Amino acid sequence: MTATLLQPEDVVTVENPGAAGPFLIVCEHASNAFPAPFGSLGLTEAQQLAHIAWDPGALGLARGLAARLGAPLVAARVSRLIYDLNRPPHSAGAMPARSETHDIPGNAGLTDADRLARTEAIYLPFHAALRAEIARRLARGRPPVIVTVHSFTPIWHGTPRSVEFGVIHDADPSLALATVAAARKTGLRAELNQPYSAADEVTHTLRLQASPLGLANVMLEIRNDLIASSAAQEAMAETLAPVLHQTETDQAGTAA
Amino acid sequence: MTATLLQPEDVVTVENPGAAGPFLIVCEHASNAFPAPFGSLGLTEAQQLAHIAWDPGALGLARGLAARLGAPLVAARVSRLIYDLNRPPHSAGAMPARSETHDIPGNAGLTDADRLARTEAIYLPFHAALRAEIARRLARGRPPVIVTVHSFTPIWHGTPRSVEFGVIHDADPSLALATVAAARKTGLRAELNQPYSAADEVTHTLRLQASPLGLANVMLEIRNDLIASSAAQEAMAETLAPVLHQTETDQAGTAA
Repeated sequence: MTATLLQPEDVVTVENPGAAGPFLIVCEHASNAFPAPFGSLGLTEAQQLAHIAWDPGALGLARGLAARLGAPLVAARVSRLIYDLNRPPHSAGAMPARSETHDIPGNAGLTDADRLARTEAIYLPFHAALRAEIARRLARGRPPVIVTVHSFTPIWHGTPRSVEFGVIHDADPSLALATVAAARKTGLRAELNQPYSAADEVTHTLRLQASPLGLANVMLEIRNDLIASSAAQEAMAETLAPVLHQTETDQAGTAA
Repeated sequence: MTATLLQPEDVVTVENPGAAGPFLIVCEHASNAFPAPFGSLGLTEAQQLAHIAWDPGALGLARGLAARLGAPLVAARVSRLIYDLNRPPHSAGAMPARSETHDIPGNAGLTDADRLARTEAIYLPFHAALRAEIARRLARGRPPVIVTVHSFTPIWHGTPRSVEFGVIHDADPSLALATVAAARKTGLRAELNQPYSAADEVTHTLRLQASPLGLANVMLEIRNDLIASSAAQEAMAETLAPVLHQTETDQAGTAA
């Protein structure tokens, strides 16, 4: 198994590069593609379509937000089961042998060489592309606000989830708090640090890419039954873009 | 002025890649090279040799430590006055128009395009190479301890400095505290957070590369009159390698 068959452009796409709005959108779990040389990991077609393989609807929502906010979008092109880009290479969750109720055969008993190959083929180019897009903004004196876009399953281990919109922060809660407050005014059931929080190790991208550079940042989690179609993704983008725009404007005003 | 004349290998060198010891050594200010397309920035030869252009002696010491500790060494090959790799792209100090008592003509009135070109040519490849070396260690389940090696001038704005060995930390002081205590036993005048501290924005590399991944880290500053010759650099490495080895062993014991 060698990593050389995958090129960076097979792993990450940067849409609207250099767009000048205040945000930069990230979608680590955008794709359920299982390209060679890693392949399907022994999963059935149904498993490859399920939420364990990606965040259904997240890419469409992220694109809708990027278009409305004039933002670059950095999105993955490989399933999170091959490499979960929101986890560092030494996390068991980066290449999980089990996800919710499913064994992942191709991730059982990985060797150091296997983990290294996926790290070099997927993790490094994705985060290098994101770092580059951020650094280009910094060089022009316009630090972007980093927003990661995710979706979550309405039923987890058999239990329904009532939250519709989770807003998760890493070290700095300010933008997340403002986003929850603004989102509730739209009628969404919005909650802070639900259904996950930084304690679940879900803020790796924010911690790696935003916090060290002092960039405002927030992670969005939308229940995937609310963004199951292209039309629903567009409608949710239409709802959330003004929420983000307003909170960013308010925060910038507070900071100034 | 285009950035395409510089290749990554002109900007950063990785010595002992994949070395298996517990440390990874970084030397951001290793070089006083002023390569095209950026060139001498209008500086005299004397200025290009002075401490404003690089950290004299730091590379020799870093190599001596890397050899004794079985560590990879990631070192810059470009002067800090073209791009200071221990500063983010939106910091004025990344491409300073003035350093101590010297104007830097080639850094006066830089445009966004100038800053972008240096960021892409120097900052991004250096930190990508360092990130890659770290990630390869993580994939193999062996998180490295990050040590950055610097030197400082004995006289700053006309005032002599008595500290010989400064040990600087970012968020986590534990390794720095232990290093100061161990170094004092060698007879060195060692001080915590001297002659700089994180408040002076000198911990960018630690903050970017170590803290987000939970890696133990420390920044070393040696007064450059103590490492002015190859022999002195070797002697200092011979003194400091056991200090680092002992503190790492003690810390690992505490953590286990």
